[in-house]
Amino acid sequence: MSTFVEIICIGTELLIGKTLNTNAHWLAKRITSLGLNVRRVTTVHDEIDEMSKVIQETLQRKPLFVITCGGLGPTFDDKTLEGVSMALGCKTEVNSDALKMIEKKYQRYVEEGLIEKLELTPPRVKMARLPKGAKPLFNPVGTAPGVIIKPGDTTIIALPGVPSEMMAIFEDSVVPLLKAAAGSKIFFETSLDVRGVMESDIAPLIDQVMHDNPYIYVKSHPTPTGEKVPHLELHLSTTAEDSDTAKNRVSRALIQLSELIKQKGGKIKVLEAKSIS
Amino acid sequence: MSTFVEIICIGTELLIGKTLNTNAHWLAKRITSLGLNVRRVTTVHDEIDEMSKVIQETLQRKPLFVITCGGLGPTFDDKTLEGVSMALGCKTEVNSDALKMIEKKYQRYVEEGLIEKLELTPPRVKMARLPKGAKPLFNPVGTAPGVIIKPGDTTIIALPGVPSEMMAIFEDSVVPLLKAAAGSKIFFETSLDVRGVMESDIAPLIDQVMHDNPYIYVKSHPTPTGEKVPHLELHLSTTAEDSDTAKNRVSRALIQLSELIKQKGGKIKVLEAKSIS
Repeated sequence: MSTFVEIICIGTELLIGKTLNTNAHWLAKRITSLGLNVRRVTTVHDEIDEMSKVIQETLQRKPLFVITCGGLGPTFDDKTLEGVSMALGCKTEVNSDALKMIEKKYQRYVEEGLIEKLELTPPRVKMARLPKGAKPLFNPVGTAPGVIIKPGDTTIIALPGVPSEMMAIFEDSVVPLLKAAAGSKIFFETSLDVRGVMESDIAPLIDQVMHDNPYIYVKSHPTPTGEKVPHLELHLSTTAEDSDTAKNRVSRALIQLSELIKQKGGKIKVLEAKSIS
Repeated sequence: MSTFVEIICIGTELLIGKTLNTNAHWLAKRITSLGLNVRRVTTVHDEIDEMSKVIQETLQRKPLFVITCGGLGPTFDDKTLEGVSMALGCKTEVNSDALKMIEKKYQRYVEEGLIEKLELTPPRVKMARLPKGAKPLFNPVGTAPGVIIKPGDTTIIALPGVPSEMMAIFEDSVVPLLKAAAGSKIFFETSLDVRGVMESDIAPLIDQVMHDNPYIYVKSHPTPTGEKVPHLELHLSTTAEDSDTAKNRVSRALIQLSELIKQKGGKIKVLEAKSIS
């Protein structure tokens, strides 16, 4: 069974460069830290056809989870659930649990004086209109529930685009599912700050370390400083079955890489070493 | 002829949540400001097969431009040009113009004392190995040239992932091409800050304004403040054939929307009105 995840970000604001996609970054970091692999992030407009196409293409790659982000609210351009329905060839219908969650929220807004009276207007009911077979995920921060549906081997989870709401539903309702799927797997990473050796001269050293340390991924990130000294960050990471294995692997590779760089006259500093699950 | 652009971001660092994808944000904003439409952003790992698949899928949608970002450097995991070659079914070969650009850079690094002597080692020559038929784009900041190739109606442009290098090549070599494709088209946007009306009550007002103002896209962004007052940003935008048309369209919609919101008891403030080409 695959253990990879795909993220689909939905929102014209991301594609016109109005909004920086911090949601994809947060989700990718969090999912990786839980021991799963994010294989692709796709960002699309608030268009039902386009969303539906992307969801279908994604399902063909058979990820364990597809997490969509954005497009669950009350306005006309919140179309994610219609996109999911079209992709799955099912209808949307008002889900009574979702409607209850929404009704409760607006009841609270009445009590807080945000609105005068409880009215389930069409835009409010719209947030309870889920693909047939889907279930709502409680939103502890905002109004629109998250949504989960498992049309086959892949579980589709739809989260809102407002970061605080997305994160809250993720932590409460999605993390337990991802943890169960990942088992004891752990992601571990370390960074090495390197000065005085050019990236093109580090390249064969990385090749050697990756050859000698399977499972370790080393990536170099040039970090221009404006100074006339080459400056790089080397990032070492692994996903392993348990914490000790992960740490041992990374440490071994780190020591070898450090030695090789010192022999080339480079100055090094270990920046961080952490597991973040 | 289509006028849309797709962006492909390449880099495992983006999918493990190590790096926030500011490149996609910058490119999307800049391309939109030039009057073109970014239709999709796809982020993939540094894997040749995966890149090649994504490029092929993208080409099937017939964008005017595909801009890739990342993976042009000297290390083993800089695989973008191999991915492009595989997608196009062509070979890579050392491009003499690219090699001259690279040689000149290392000559300068020798003069600056960054390296002792000029050696075109395999990792350095690697950056000149382009898909057959491609041309290099001068990199005024770093070493790896950008790359351009036009296998059919779509132009593929490969830019480095280091932001300063990506931006410099984009401004020098890509902007003229995009401007020529966009003609006089202009993107114009305005934001309205709204307090005191819930998003679900604004929804039908947006519907009405968008119905009465075709070509105007209105998107609501809830901006939670922690206060017990609903707070939204409404973003109005259009792409038009010329600046006057764009401004007139947005102004007309802005006035109508403001009136409708005031009638609902909302407080409004115009946040920004600008064209950014």
